[in-house]
Amino acid sequence: MGELTTGRAATSLLTDHYELTMVQASLHAGTAHRRSLFEAFGRRLPAGRRFGVVAGTGRILEMLRDFRFGSAELRFLEETKVVDSTTLDWLRDFRFSGTIRGYAEGEVYFPGSPLLTVESTFAEAVLLETLILSVLNHDSAVASAASRMSNAAGDRPCAEMGSRRTHEEAAVAAARAAVVAGFASTSNLEAGRRYGVRTIGTSAHSFTLLHDTERQAFAAQVGSLGTDTILLLDTYDVDEALRTAIEIAGTDLGGVRLDSGDLAIQAHEVREKLDALGAVNTTITVTSDLDEYAIAGLQAAPVDSYGVGTRLVTGSGAPTASLVYKLVSRQDDGGQWVSVAKKASGKSSTGGFKQARRLYDGAIAIEEAVGVPNLPTDMTDGRDLTVDLVVDGVIDDSFTGAEGVRKAQHRHATSKAELPRSAHRLQDGEPAIPTVFYDD
Amino acid sequence: MGELTTGRAATSLLTDHYELTMVQASLHAGTAHRRSLFEAFGRRLPAGRRFGVVAGTGRILEMLRDFRFGSAELRFLEETKVVDSTTLDWLRDFRFSGTIRGYAEGEVYFPGSPLLTVESTFAEAVLLETLILSVLNHDSAVASAASRMSNAAGDRPCAEMGSRRTHEEAAVAAARAAVVAGFASTSNLEAGRRYGVRTIGTSAHSFTLLHDTERQAFAAQVGSLGTDTILLLDTYDVDEALRTAIEIAGTDLGGVRLDSGDLAIQAHEVREKLDALGAVNTTITVTSDLDEYAIAGLQAAPVDSYGVGTRLVTGSGAPTASLVYKLVSRQDDGGQWVSVAKKASGKSSTGGFKQARRLYDGAIAIEEAVGVPNLPTDMTDGRDLTVDLVVDGVIDDSFTGAEGVRKAQHRHATSKAELPRSAHRLQDGEPAIPTVFYDD
Repeated sequence: MGELTTGRAATSLLTDHYELTMVQASLHAGTAHRRSLFEAFGRRLPAGRRFGVVAGTGRILEMLRDFRFGSAELRFLEETKVVDSTTLDWLRDFRFSGTIRGYAEGEVYFPGSPLLTVESTFAEAVLLETLILSVLNHDSAVASAASRMSNAAGDRPCAEMGSRRTHEEAAVAAARAAVVAGFASTSNLEAGRRYGVRTIGTSAHSFTLLHDTERQAFAAQVGSLGTDTILLLDTYDVDEALRTAIEIAGTDLGGVRLDSGDLAIQAHEVREKLDALGAVNTTITVTSDLDEYAIAGLQAAPVDSYGVGTRLVTGSGAPTASLVYKLVSRQDDGGQWVSVAKKASGKSSTGGFKQARRLYDGAIAIEEAVGVPNLPTDMTDGRDLTVDLVVDGVIDDSFTGAEGVRKAQHRHATSKAELPRSAHRLQDGEPAIPTVFYDD
Repeated sequence: MGELTTGRAATSLLTDHYELTMVQASLHAGTAHRRSLFEAFGRRLPAGRRFGVVAGTGRILEMLRDFRFGSAELRFLEETKVVDSTTLDWLRDFRFSGTIRGYAEGEVYFPGSPLLTVESTFAEAVLLETLILSVLNHDSAVASAASRMSNAAGDRPCAEMGSRRTHEEAAVAAARAAVVAGFASTSNLEAGRRYGVRTIGTSAHSFTLLHDTERQAFAAQVGSLGTDTILLLDTYDVDEALRTAIEIAGTDLGGVRLDSGDLAIQAHEVREKLDALGAVNTTITVTSDLDEYAIAGLQAAPVDSYGVGTRLVTGSGAPTASLVYKLVSRQDDGGQWVSVAKKASGKSSTGGFKQARRLYDGAIAIEEAVGVPNLPTDMTDGRDLTVDLVVDGVIDDSFTGAEGVRKAQHRHATSKAELPRSAHRLQDGEPAIPTVFYDD
């Protein structure tokens, strides 16, 4: 629980320069040790979205273990004079000792939902700002898109295949976030290794083109991977490829993939021909530039599964969740908590430590109730949304690793099932339920 | 040169499942060892863009050093039965032994520019597909946006500040790509450590709010970081903050930052007041949701530098460069090269190994000449665009690390300066120069 993991790269420089100079200036002023409460939240959802999905929480906790300043990090900070020697000494001993609470991974969220709160000294909490936001903003953007896509796909499984269209490490996180939010599998092997998620694959056009004929390519694939494999049909002529595929693999062929053209028309034609050849259990996977709208448009087509790439890993038009991390209250020298909020135009924060509870009418969510800081004492119905993730520096490991992903998958399915039907409309609209703030 | 770097994480599973099963099937069929030529290129630029910027090349070479299958990787592949034992044996010994040529990092590019070609056995080249595309697609998307932004900023420096709005490792790569494409600095410390780029920072609203008064916050910052620091003015009232800032730091105050409101109007007001107070050398940095259009809109405002976040790291509307990696030719069993191309509708590749040369009228580029495979022998003018990056498995380290970034910066400045003036219009348009394919 919470021990420094040796042999892994430190995560402490995955941050902004100013986080460290603010630590220095607050150490100098004697304010670094004021207890502070920071909160990560979104002022709004991406335009038109009905809900967001929290993702990345487990990754934050995993990286918090390695958020230490070792010799390489300290040497860089010293040589480049980012901070002074007093601050270097403080960083050398740094270990997060505060408490982090928040929405558990996979939970849906709305504008103003207090997704993650960090209570610690100012210096400890401000150091984590950039890393927490990077993870939540990226992973939640992908998960929010994935949830819409898997919902549009209904009972048909979606596979994440976007690794090549995003940063190589973002690809691993995107695969993980997609699986949290309803995807059945990913093509990303590192996501399989780190998080135990199922990996899948078919083959590429290059594999067919490597061979002298398509027949030889299909024979090579089936000979090596078995008849349960998925053959790619659209390198040359789809009809001919389909006949060749069944000749080689027989009617037990696992599946075929279509990656271009009018997918709905082709899926109908391919299904008809597969059935006519007796390959009634051979599945059809489609994979060409899909998003939630394209998937919805294929509802009536005889498609068995979807492979989604670019639009998933780029958040389907919203590549960042636009979450912010704000100081909402801090203690004064007397140890009294003071709510704080900047007053510049156009940006307002609701100050104070918050409780959050989802209220229901029967089984359907009707309100995101946020107490500022407390909810009314007579509000005992609904579901408490805030869980302890780190208590006094001790990380709850059940939110991390493969276990964390599995739990988040189940949590997302449950949380999504509680939403009103309007939440699943793909057309632009308002948040599915209102966020109501309660001042006490 | 090209030795395996020990003590670093293997990069070999940052790839798609099907790359490995294609290796298996081609080993089984005896085709894995056919010499093959893959090419990374873009069919088109993002809508309306006049040029793209190649970025990430150095990172690909750095990760190629560690593209090895160690015990952890092999154990995962064995336990999950991704590939068979013959393939595991082949992967255990894997080390890229082929040749990679391409546009050097920082170079501008156009539709059809042959950005990176990999010549090796099929199995070696296909294994690298996902990693190469991940890096090029991400880094080039950011660099292409960064170039437009730094161009719109003219002589005023741009700082990259978007770490919190993208995946934590993508943030490091984004900072690097931004600097390649004209940005002066970044807030990302890890980018500073890895690539020697300049890091900078101001302070956040939370720092002001931590203190009992804005005056105490400014005094803390100036007391610790010196008068050369940048004070954030818009936590409460900008006018009052400005007066307080000069009272505390004197007229030697390094700079002020504005992060909200109408930046043009505020910049004029703040400049006037700073000058009136005698702080004529105090600079003004603006940072609120900037992109190339907002920067262009501030040309007439007395702004000294721009801090750009979200829109930069998300590629200013084009978060991926949409580059593809295609098999363009391969040898047959007799060792003869055969050009290959899939023939499905809507997607066409121009087959064959390619030369690329940029042609000029005086100092101005007028054509991207691409030979399929060769350019006309009498085409001796212009500039050869293709350089050797890896020769027979030996990596040219001068393209990697801090040195690689510095060279890429200079290369981009030179390459951009050669473009016709139309290239720098921000309005949507056609590629700045045409790509002409020469069949021999």
